[in-house]
Amino acid sequence: MNRQTLVRNIHSKKSFLCVGLDTDIQKIPVHLKDTADPVFEFNKAVIDATRDLCVAYKPNIAFYECLGPSGWKSLEKTMDYIGDEVFTIADAKRGDIGNTSKMYARTFFEYFNFDAVTVAPYMGVDSVAPFFEFDDKWVILLGLTSNTGSHDFQEIKNHAGQPLYESVIRKAQEWGNPSNLMFVIGATHPAHFAEIRSMAEDFFFLVPGVGAQGGDLDAVSSYGKNKDLGLLVNSSREIIYAGSGPDFQEAVRAKAMFVKTQMEKHLL
Amino acid sequence: MNRQTLVRNIHSKKSFLCVGLDTDIQKIPVHLKDTADPVFEFNKAVIDATRDLCVAYKPNIAFYECLGPSGWKSLEKTMDYIGDEVFTIADAKRGDIGNTSKMYARTFFEYFNFDAVTVAPYMGVDSVAPFFEFDDKWVILLGLTSNTGSHDFQEIKNHAGQPLYESVIRKAQEWGNPSNLMFVIGATHPAHFAEIRSMAEDFFFLVPGVGAQGGDLDAVSSYGKNKDLGLLVNSSREIIYAGSGPDFQEAVRAKAMFVKTQMEKHLL
Repeated sequence: MNRQTLVRNIHSKKSFLCVGLDTDIQKIPVHLKDTADPVFEFNKAVIDATRDLCVAYKPNIAFYECLGPSGWKSLEKTMDYIGDEVFTIADAKRGDIGNTSKMYARTFFEYFNFDAVTVAPYMGVDSVAPFFEFDDKWVILLGLTSNTGSHDFQEIKNHAGQPLYESVIRKAQEWGNPSNLMFVIGATHPAHFAEIRSMAEDFFFLVPGVGAQGGDLDAVSSYGKNKDLGLLVNSSREIIYAGSGPDFQEAVRAKAMFVKTQMEKHLL
Repeated sequence: MNRQTLVRNIHSKKSFLCVGLDTDIQKIPVHLKDTADPVFEFNKAVIDATRDLCVAYKPNIAFYECLGPSGWKSLEKTMDYIGDEVFTIADAKRGDIGNTSKMYARTFFEYFNFDAVTVAPYMGVDSVAPFFEFDDKWVILLGLTSNTGSHDFQEIKNHAGQPLYESVIRKAQEWGNPSNLMFVIGATHPAHFAEIRSMAEDFFFLVPGVGAQGGDLDAVSSYGKNKDLGLLVNSSREIIYAGSGPDFQEAVRAKAMFVKTQMEKHLL
């Protein structure tokens, strides 16, 4: 999906919600566990409940990998079910030497047909560049993440006082552009949003950490948005596990609607 | 596999060779392509040709993932065929927030029964810690990698002149110990080996970059070894694609034997 379509979807749906499909087979409603493919049945129910309320889905690849070949089948079916109308992000956090990153790019962009993949920056240019060789596909590079460990290395300052995440955000703009590169900026750092936006004015940010991890949607939106909105705010556990009974779809929809409604005022 | 067994294997086999199973279906000998599982048949042939010459196998997960569910099946069969006598490394370069890293740890340590997994440090402590919760399993954390992009961020110096890779190597020693943590140190930086060894005296280093990437085995071994040897030197493409005809196994064995013979003098 190209940038123009993504921006249009955000404004027409009045939503910049990304629903994270961190589908844990231990946590899905009991009545789905006896089906042939519980992970897919759960995802299908979540997608049906949220498709008109969100602009992106983000399967967390770890949750599919851990099931072996059957997990990959559930992921394939999920991707087919989502289709081409909603932006899809493989939350995979890959990154390796060039010939290996190329394989990862093929996996997520060609085999599974994702629009975007999250990539870890530690290995530098040749670990990221192969993902740019696909039209209308996106790299979402880790900038400042939402977790407690983000303080360990991402905030280390160089001799000029520039933290590592800033070096990453600035350097990556030599490799990609606002139509094929986004950054992961965690919602748990709202104080940094205005500053980070100034480093990458035209780029989309994928923002995890709202909800279960405690980030504040209004603060993130106010400080982080740009002229195109430029944000995809993710919520995973808070939405997909909003209910646990046979009527869990209603709870999922209600929670997604609640978040989407909070978003509308930032899209006026 | 615990440290004691790994060290014993190195000294009894007089080898610290790790064979990288970067099995690219495009590159395997033609006569294997018509078999039911060409990737596994190729790996089986490589393993048969090298099992007594190496102490570790390192499947590069990207090459299996890109084939979808069938790639995971080939990987499962490869792991069964290797068995428990040789150290196994999932070259996956994973790393995510705590609950997700836990899933990756289960995938590689429980589902596939690898001894070790390579992990990217960018997301810090909670992205690495879940991998330490398994007995006799290992984290191999990216330190200074072998690729050209290693210069982009890993060598950025903090206010005290300490490069990022040093911050990673020192900080990670607060999380793990020489019996459950190794570091990836690329062979393409031989001048750094003595210095890096002094930062992590008792730790194993997994050393990629000898062979196709140009690293010098003797320099790496001389500057990098410690009292237990403490090195696993990987070679992938140079060994596994040493031949391409029906007799490729002989070429694979000859190349592995050549590398192993070069290693022996460092184990006297």
